[in-house]
Formats: sequence, structure tokens, C-alpha cells
Amino acid sequence: MSTSGSVGIIHPQCFEFAAQQPFELESGALLSPVSVAYETYGRLNAGRSNAVLAEHALSGGAHAAGYDESGRLGWWDDCIGPGKAFDTDRYFVICSNVLGGCYGSSGPSSTNPATGQPYGLRFPVVTVGDMVRAQVALIDHLGIDRLLCVTGGSMGGMQALEWAAHHPRRVKAAIPLASTARSSPMLIAFSEVGRQAIYSDPNWQGGDYYNSGHKPDAGLALARMIGHITYLSDQSMHQKFGRRLQNREKFGYEFETEFQIESYLKHKGNSFTQRFDANSYLYITKAMDYFDLGVPDGLPAAFARSVGIEYLVVSFTSDWLYPSYHSKELVSALTAVGADISYLDIQSSWGHDAFLLEVETMTGLIRSFMDRVAREEGIDG
Amino acid sequence: MSTSGSVGIIHPQCFEFAAQQPFELESGALLSPVSVAYETYGRLNAGRSNAVLAEHALSGGAHAAGYDESGRLGWWDDCIGPGKAFDTDRYFVICSNVLGGCYGSSGPSSTNPATGQPYGLRFPVVTVGDMVRAQVALIDHLGIDRLLCVTGGSMGGMQALEWAAHHPRRVKAAIPLASTARSSPMLIAFSEVGRQAIYSDPNWQGGDYYNSGHKPDAGLALARMIGHITYLSDQSMHQKFGRRLQNREKFGYEFETEFQIESYLKHKGNSFTQRFDANSYLYITKAMDYFDLGVPDGLPAAFARSVGIEYLVVSFTSDWLYPSYHSKELVSALTAVGADISYLDIQSSWGHDAFLLEVETMTGLIRSFMDRVAREEGIDG
Repeated sequence: MSTSGSVGIIHPQCFEFAAQQPFELESGALLSPVSVAYETYGRLNAGRSNAVLAEHALSGGAHAAGYDESGRLGWWDDCIGPGKAFDTDRYFVICSNVLGGCYGSSGPSSTNPATGQPYGLRFPVVTVGDMVRAQVALIDHLGIDRLLCVTGGSMGGMQALEWAAHHPRRVKAAIPLASTARSSPMLIAFSEVGRQAIYSDPNWQGGDYYNSGHKPDAGLALARMIGHITYLSDQSMHQKFGRRLQNREKFGYEFETEFQIESYLKHKGNSFTQRFDANSYLYITKAMDYFDLGVPDGLPAAFARSVGIEYLVVSFTSDWLYPSYHSKELVSALTAVGADISYLDIQSSWGHDAFLLEVETMTGLIRSFMDRVAREEGIDG
Repeated sequence: MSTSGSVGIIHPQCFEFAAQQPFELESGALLSPVSVAYETYGRLNAGRSNAVLAEHALSGGAHAAGYDESGRLGWWDDCIGPGKAFDTDRYFVICSNVLGGCYGSSGPSSTNPATGQPYGLRFPVVTVGDMVRAQVALIDHLGIDRLLCVTGGSMGGMQALEWAAHHPRRVKAAIPLASTARSSPMLIAFSEVGRQAIYSDPNWQGGDYYNSGHKPDAGLALARMIGHITYLSDQSMHQKFGRRLQNREKFGYEFETEFQIESYLKHKGNSFTQRFDANSYLYITKAMDYFDLGVPDGLPAAFARSVGIEYLVVSFTSDWLYPSYHSKELVSALTAVGADISYLDIQSSWGHDAFLLEVETMTGLIRSFMDRVAREEGIDG
């Protein structure tokens, strides 16, 4: 295990709140207590002005950088660490698991204090707004008044935009990557098919599978396979797999896995079931479906209070799940209210996954944007 | 039921062959007997020179035009009939159900003569080449030496191209729509996810569900839902559904069908299970995955023997499942061998479904192309 250029081995932390006073969700439902699992990288400066909140996407968790206790690398280790895009020699980077997740924060697999059993579907439906309000409680707890930057890709970008729109005083800058200010019907469609795959698995048992000895692995694997298709692009599939066969030279004329692309998807689907909770997949996709900053008064109105924030908006040309027009629509709304905005549509063949893969281009871009933001805050370079 | 501009009520026919001499498939497997269900519209002329073979896509059957005995309209009734793109006052239009299908042709739900039971997965895997060779037997049976035109969209276009490449003497013209000369890894990926949805359904029972009282409806519905997403476009989903809710005014914060797009997909998925056989879904998608006219010597070589054929190649700008570059690659190969080719990339927002929806544009285009082809054959206008 190499730790050069790395934040090293990271120990997870957990913040618990709302034990006395329940946390009220957008739906009106109450949750008590609420746990937020998080990790931090780098050091908070004396002025508490150098905090960056990194927001994870659908399948991520708080472990964004360095190695966890089992030696697993964080999901955004390419961009968080000494000398990286989010330079931990300068910034105090925080990442927390979303509400509804399965990596330590309160979610459907958590214990329901009313029954002593896992919540299952009795866990209340949460929104991106709820996820972010739990993060507000976390930074209050950490004594941070204002985040230097909030950033993330995909659903992580939704959270960054939610911070900007609804907690503008708490944010100096926002970097939404490969994201959108509102879920499109195509995103909802893919979410729903993934959920139906889980519901259809008899092992799902209405969500009460935790103590049954059977999990809806087939359904969750299927949902993940569908997801992985949408994270790639037609072009990247040609490059990575083409029509090549897996471990065979000719067609078998049978219903076995024959093409490399099939093998890749099956592997991704199966390995996902080892690390993710099917009910969390339901809750998190539902939160994404609900996400629409344009309600009720349109996108410009949503950002009217956040004109002081500096934005770096990034999209990727081959991303067909969150196509560039989503980011352009956002840029147009931000421009309409006179926000300070930089936008780049990065040429990439990697599809939606590009926000995790186009490290070099993103590093240059983010470093330069963060330099400016930090300089304005008087943070030493 | 209106029959104006319609071919009227159509009675299905069935051609059976290979009862004595088994039909050898590309895999080397033998099939005996072989049934091919078909319908015809219009009249074969005295010279037997006015036959047009219409090829269906994944979920279609022989019922392409007019009404069947239950009053159901054919899948391409918009384009086949008196005065329509394929004018039945001039042409004798044939449509047959593909091998492996479930609408009367031999497939996995047919009775295996060796056991008296449905084949299930004992039915041999078929290819697009096998489907077309069964159609060659059908037109031999109908006494047609050469088809005036062979046409179809999506997998129907694959069959049209297979005719052109491997039976060039039997075809005067070919019109592949929204199609490809080889399945892409993305097509294979979506096929495989649909198959996995079926395999994962416990009611599938390894394919032997026919007499069990339980069919893999959940798996097949899921496969179809995935399919329907790919047949639409991001733009058409915005137009048709947007983020509108179904029969409700606000979010329910529960796991019910809430958005119109979800309701549409569920309806399409469920109704598909009433009319389609899950095993046929496996066989037909597998045939599509295998389809690659570029093997072994590249696309130009594949069409070297078919330079006498006139081609009209059509793609649709918003079709991301069979993107225009597939058709352009085909056009490039055909041009390289000096084929007579017309190509149009039709501006459309309807995605892959456009080949069934852009009736007006296609009618003009196809009529004019067919006029020329018919004139060359001395067929009266």
C-alpha cells in the first residue's frame, strides 16, 4: 500500500444529532436520532475558512480519499490529497455519507429505535434537500460557518447546487460536475427500472430482508448493470470492449456470457451486491428523481439569493445521462441572476464516468479555480 | 373499425418446410420441421416481380398491416396499404415472423417433435442469417425469384442487409431504416441486461415455464421497460412526459409510481407480457448480438457481391440506440464497392422509434425510391 501523494489511512467518524429534537424531513416525517458518517482530510485552519465539502454520487460513501482500514482507496482519491485538485496541504476536505445511504449514515438498514429492527421501508423517504440539511448540521458541529467550496459529480453536483440555492450564506464557491439542477425524465426512467429490478426480486421481501438470510442480490445487480451502461458512452464501450469475446474465440450458440461487455456488466453488478444495500438504492434514486431546483419559480429564482457564490460548472461532451445541455441550462440561469460563473464542457469520450476519469484536465481546472477562491479568502498558497 | 386506406382484415398463413430434410442452422444445429408464419398484402403480378418483403423488429410479428381477426392493427400499417409508402395497389407485400419468434414461426414456445413438449431452451440458437434463410425458403415457396425490395427498421434492417449481403441475386433493392450492419457493444449491453432480467425471474425456471402455470412476467416486463427507454430519446421524453406526475399533484414521499414516465414504462412492460414470450426475447436478442456483417473481411467485402442492388439507407438524428454513424459506416462501405445508394439522416426528435413515427417524411422518401425501382422493373405506376 503506497501512501505517497495520499492522505494515508483514514479512520471514519460519526456525528449523531436529533436525539432529543427530531430532524424534520421535507416530507414532514421525523427522524431521530440521525447519524452522519464522515471523513476529513487535511487540517482546518485557525480561521476555519479552508473547508471543502466533497459530495458523493449514488453509490459512494464518506470514504473519498486515502485508504480505509481494509486498505480500500477512496472514491475520489485521484482528486483529493497533497498536491491534488483539492490539495489537502491547503484545504480541509470533508466527505459525509448521505442520509438514506448504507455507509454509516442513517438509512433503511439502520436500526429503527422504535422496534430495535432495521427500518427497511419504514425509513422515511429523504430528499437531496434533507441530505444537505444533515450536512449543515455536520458543519455546525465542526464549527465551520462557511464552506470555502462544495463540490461533487452527478448526485454530488445536485447536493452542491442544493447548498448554493438553499444555504447560500454557508458557501463561498460551488463546483457541480456532470450534474443537473433537475432530474430529467430519462434519469427518472433509468432510476425506476433499477427500482423495479429490486422490487421484482422475491428476496427483497418488501424491504424486510435484513434478518432473513436472503438479500435481493439479483435485483440489485441488475439495477447496477443498467446503471453502468448509462455511466459509459457508446464510444467508450467501443474502445473498452468492442465486439470482443470473453475467454473464447467463437460464438457458443448458447445463453452464456460471451462478449466482454456482458462479462464486465455482470462483474460490476455482482460485486456491487457485496458492498451496497438494495433499499439504499431505492431511497437514493428516489431522492434524485425528486430533485428539481426549478420548482416553484424557475431556476433563476432558485439562485437569486446565491449570487455571491462563485461557480465552476463542468460537463462532459459524451455524457448522455447528464448531457451538457443540463449544465448549460444551469449556466444560463446563473448568468441571468448575475452570478460569477466559469463553465467548461470538457471534450471526453468517457461518458458520465468522465467526472471520475478526466483527472488531468479537471485537476488543472479545479486548482486554478480554487487558487482564486482561496486567495480571496486570504488562504496561503 | 375503419378499413379505408387499409388492406382490411388479414388472415395469417403458415408455410412449413424441412419436415424431411432438416434445416441446418449457422451453429450446425438441425431444425425439423420449420414453420414460418406470414401475411401478404396486395397482389403478386403476373411477372412475379412486385414483391416487397417487410422485416419486423425485435417484438414484431407477421401482422404488419390491416386488422387481424381480433381487430388489432399491424405494426407497420402506417406504411403498408393502398396509397401508402409501400402501396399495396402496386406491390405485393409479404411479412413473416422471424425464426425464434412467438407469433407462429418456429421458436422456443413451439412443440419439440422429439418430446411433444415446448422446446424451451432446447430450441437451437438462431442467427439473423438463419432467419433470412427461412425467408428465402418462403419466397421460393411463393414462386418469387427476386424480391423487388426488402425493408425493415432496427432488427428488420439487419435482415434487409443480410439479404443484400448473402442473397444478392434474390433482391433488387434494400431499405434498411434505423439499423446497423453490426451490433454495437451498447446494443449487446442492453440486450444482456434484458436477458438477465428474465433469467433472474424465478418463474423463468430455466426456460421450462410453459406448462407450469407461471411465466416470467416480471422479468420480461423489466426487459421491455429497459427497451422502451432506449427506443425514446431524451428530447422525446421531455416532450411526452417531462417531470409531470401521474394522477397526483404532489410528491407522495413513498415508493409508488409517481411520474408519468414511470407509469408509461410500467404499462408498456406489463402489456408486453400479455403478447410476447420471454424465451423468444432471449433468442431474438441473441441473434441481434451475433449480427456482424463485417466478419470476417470487413463491411466492403460483405457487400462486394451485392453492388447491383439499389439502397435507400435511412437514419434518424435522435436515435441513440442505432446512432446515425452506424448508417454512415454502412453508406461508406457501400460507396467503397460502388453500390447505387441514397442516404438520408432524418431530423427527428423521436429517437429509435422514429422509424415507426416519422410516417410523412418516410412516405415521401420511400415512394419516390420505390417509383424508380418499380419503373426500372417495368411495373406500372
